[in-house]
Amino acid sequence: MTLVLREDDGAVARLTMNAPERLNALSDAMLAALQAEFDRLKEDRAIRAVILAGSGKAFCAGHDLKEMTQGRQAPDGGAAYFADLFSRCARLMQTIPTLPQPVIAEVHGIATAAGCQLVASCDLAVAAEDARFGVNGVNIGLFCSTPMVALSRNVPRKQAFEMLVTGDFIEAPRARELGLVNRVVPGAVLREETAALAGKIAGKLATAVRIGKRAFYEQLEMPLAQAYAYTGEVMVENMLDRDTAEGIAAFLEKRRPEWRQ
Amino acid sequence: MTLVLREDDGAVARLTMNAPERLNALSDAMLAALQAEFDRLKEDRAIRAVILAGSGKAFCAGHDLKEMTQGRQAPDGGAAYFADLFSRCARLMQTIPTLPQPVIAEVHGIATAAGCQLVASCDLAVAAEDARFGVNGVNIGLFCSTPMVALSRNVPRKQAFEMLVTGDFIEAPRARELGLVNRVVPGAVLREETAALAGKIAGKLATAVRIGKRAFYEQLEMPLAQAYAYTGEVMVENMLDRDTAEGIAAFLEKRRPEWRQ
Amino acid sequence: MTLVLREDDGAVARLTMNAPERLNALSDAMLAALQAEFDRLKEDRAIRAVILAGSGKAFCAGHDLKEMTQGRQAPDGGAAYFADLFSRCARLMQTIPTLPQPVIAEVHGIATAAGCQLVASCDLAVAAEDARFGVNGVNIGLFCSTPMVALSRNVPRKQAFEMLVTGDFIEAPRARELGLVNRVVPGAVLREETAALAGKIAGKLATAVRIGKRAFYEQLEMPLAQAYAYTGEVMVENMLDRDTAEGIAAFLEKRRPEWRQ
Repeated sequence: MTLVLREDDGAVARLTMNAPERLNALSDAMLAALQAEFDRLKEDRAIRAVILAGSGKAFCAGHDLKEMTQGRQAPDGGAAYFADLFSRCARLMQTIPTLPQPVIAEVHGIATAAGCQLVASCDLAVAAEDARFGVNGVNIGLFCSTPMVALSRNVPRKQAFEMLVTGDFIEAPRARELGLVNRVVPGAVLREETAALAGKIAGKLATAVRIGKRAFYEQLEMPLAQAYAYTGEVMVENMLDRDTAEGIAAFLEKRRPEWRQ
Repeated sequence: MTLVLREDDGAVARLTMNAPERLNALSDAMLAALQAEFDRLKEDRAIRAVILAGSGKAFCAGHDLKEMTQGRQAPDGGAAYFADLFSRCARLMQTIPTLPQPVIAEVHGIATAAGCQLVASCDLAVAAEDARFGVNGVNIGLFCSTPMVALSRNVPRKQAFEMLVTGDFIEAPRARELGLVNRVVPGAVLREETAALAGKIAGKLATAVRIGKRAFYEQLEMPLAQAYAYTGEVMVENMLDRDTAEGIAAFLEKRRPEWRQ
Repeated sequence: MTLVLREDDGAVARLTMNAPERLNALSDAMLAALQAEFDRLKEDRAIRAVILAGSGKAFCAGHDLKEMTQGRQAPDGGAAYFADLFSRCARLMQTIPTLPQPVIAEVHGIATAAGCQLVASCDLAVAAEDARFGVNGVNIGLFCSTPMVALSRNVPRKQAFEMLVTGDFIEAPRARELGLVNRVVPGAVLREETAALAGKIAGKLATAVRIGKRAFYEQLEMPLAQAYAYTGEVMVENMLDRDTAEGIAAFLEKRRPEWRQ
C-alpha cells in the first residue's frame, strides 16, 4: 500500500497520509514517504500550493509507539535509533516551512503529539469542527518536547504549556482562538474549503509567493532592523520581476495581468 | 497642499496624512513629510502623545504604485530607486517605535500594504468599526515582504501568513482579536475616542513614559536574563527621577502629585 | 507572622503570601520568604506541582512603596538599594520558570505591577471571575519596566503596551483572551479548580514534566533549527527513562503504568 498518496488538481498537490489502521502514525516508513514527497514537490514548478491530509478516522496520531518500542532492543537501548528518528522527524518538520509552496494542513479527527506538530509546522491549517488537538505524550511519560517547538511558535506561552503539561485535548474552535488553525469548517465541506483556499493561493503569482514565504520565516528570527534590511532587498528583487511589473501595470490600467508563469 | 497636517491640542499632536485623492499613498513626498514631522516631534518636549490619521476615505493605501512604475525608467530598471525607497520607508516605520512619545494610529476606511504596516508600526491603534486591513500586494505580484515585518510582530504566525498569501482583507473586530488594533469604536466617535486615549497618556509623567517606551521595544529583542538586567537599570533610573519620588509620595499620602513637568 | 505559608497536599505544595494588610506587597522580607520557599521546593522531589496564592483581599499589589520610599534616605538617594531590590525581584521572577515543578498562580482580587509580573512569571494561572490585572506604575510616575518583561512574553505587543501606558486594569475574561491566564472560574471554586489542575499535573510522570518544563523555556529563546537539535536530545533522554518505557508499554498493552516514582 502506498503510504502517502499524491493527487494533483491543476497547480495544487494533495498529499494524503494513508495508514488509516494506525491513525497515520509517523513510522519510519511514513516519515520517509512524506520526506520524499516534499522533496519532490520542492523541485516541481508546476505546483503552487500543497494540501496535507490524512485518510481514515484521524489526521495523524504522532509517532509509531510500537516501532519505537522495538527500537529498544538494540544494545544501546535504542539511543542511536531514537536520536536518528527525532532527527529525521525534525528534518521533515523543517522541510515544510522551507518548501517553496505554501502547505495547508487539512485536519479531521485527532492530531496528537507529532501529529499536532505537523499541523503547527504547516503554513496554514483548516480544521473540521470536530477535530481535536493534543500534545499528550506526557500521559505516557514522554513529554512532547519536539512537538512543542512548533506548537510554541503558533500558540501563546501559557496556553501551549497547559496543553503540554496536562495532555488535554483542545477542540477546533479553541485551536483557532489560540492561533493553531486558520479556519474551522463543517466536516462535510472540509475538503472543499481547503481546496478553495489552496486554489486561491495557486492563483497568485508563484514567484511572489515563493519569495514571500521564504522571507516570512527568515525575518521572524531576526531583530527588527535586520529584518527590515533583509526584506528591503527581497522587495527590490520582487519589484524587478517582469511578471510583477505586469501585475502592477495591469492594476493601474484596471485590467487582468497576463503573467507568463 | 500640505501633505501632512499637524494640529496640536495641549500635549497631543495630531498628524493627518493629507492626500485623499490618492488614498494617502506613501509617495516619496509623503514619506518625506511624515519623516520630517516625526523628526520634529522627537525633539518636542511639549508633546506627550501623537495621533496618526488619514484624511478622506481611507487611512492609507500603501506605496504609490504610479510613482514606483515611473521609477522603472531608470537605466537599472529602478533597482537603485526601489532600494532607496524601501530604505526610506523602513526608516519611517522604525522611527515610530523609537519616538519618545507613544503613537496611536486612528484608522478608518482601508489600511493596506504599507498602510497596514503603518498601523502595525504604531504603538497603539484605534479603529472604526468599518475599517479594513490587508497586506494584499500578492494580488498584483508584489508580496508584502516589508509590511510583514511589522505585521508578524503584532499578529500570530498562521494568521499573518494567511493575510499575506491570500491578500484577503480582515475587518476591524477580527483585527482586534488578532492583536493588530487595541480598540474598535463606531466611526462617529473614532476621533473623540482616539483623542481620549491620547489625552489619558499625555496625563502621565512624560519621563516615565519615555523611559518605558524605549525599554519596551529594546527588552522584547533580548533573552529573558538580559531583559531583566537591562530593565532593572531602567527601573533604578526611573526611581531616581524627582517627579517619580513625588508621584510615589503623593500616592502614599493620598493626594495628587505635583509634577514639575 | 509567617510571611509565606506552605501547605502540602500529597505531591502539591501550596504557597500563600500572607501579608493581607499590605495586599501581599513584595517587601524585602516577602521577596526573601518567597525565594527561600522556592529554593527549598527546587530540591524537594516529593513535590510535583506548586500553587502560589495570596491571603486576604488581593493576590499581590506589587512592590512595597513605603519601604522603597524609606530606601531613598541613603546618601546615594537609594540607588544601590533599588538596584539590589530589582535584582532580587528579577531573581525570584526567573526562579519560577526554572523551578523543576510547574507553578500555578491562583489569582483573586487584584494583581498589580510586580504582582501582575508574578502571574505572568508562573507557568500557568487560574483566575477568579472578579480578578483584575494591571501594570499601573505609570499612574505614579514609575513605568512597570521589569513587570513588562514577563507581561510582554505572555500578551501580544499592542495589548501589553496599552496596559503599561494607560495603567488601566483588565478583567479576568480579557486576561484569558490575551493569554495572561489559562482559566477563569467563579471565586467560590477558585481554590478547588486550581487544586484540581495541580493534582492533574502531579499525576504525570515527574521526570517527564521536569525534563519538559526545562526544555520549554530554553527552546523558546532559540532559532528553529537549534530548538529542534536541542529538543531532539531531550526526547532521547526522556525515551531512555525506565518509567517512560513502562508508560509506553502500559499504553500499548492497555493497562495502567506502574511507575517507580
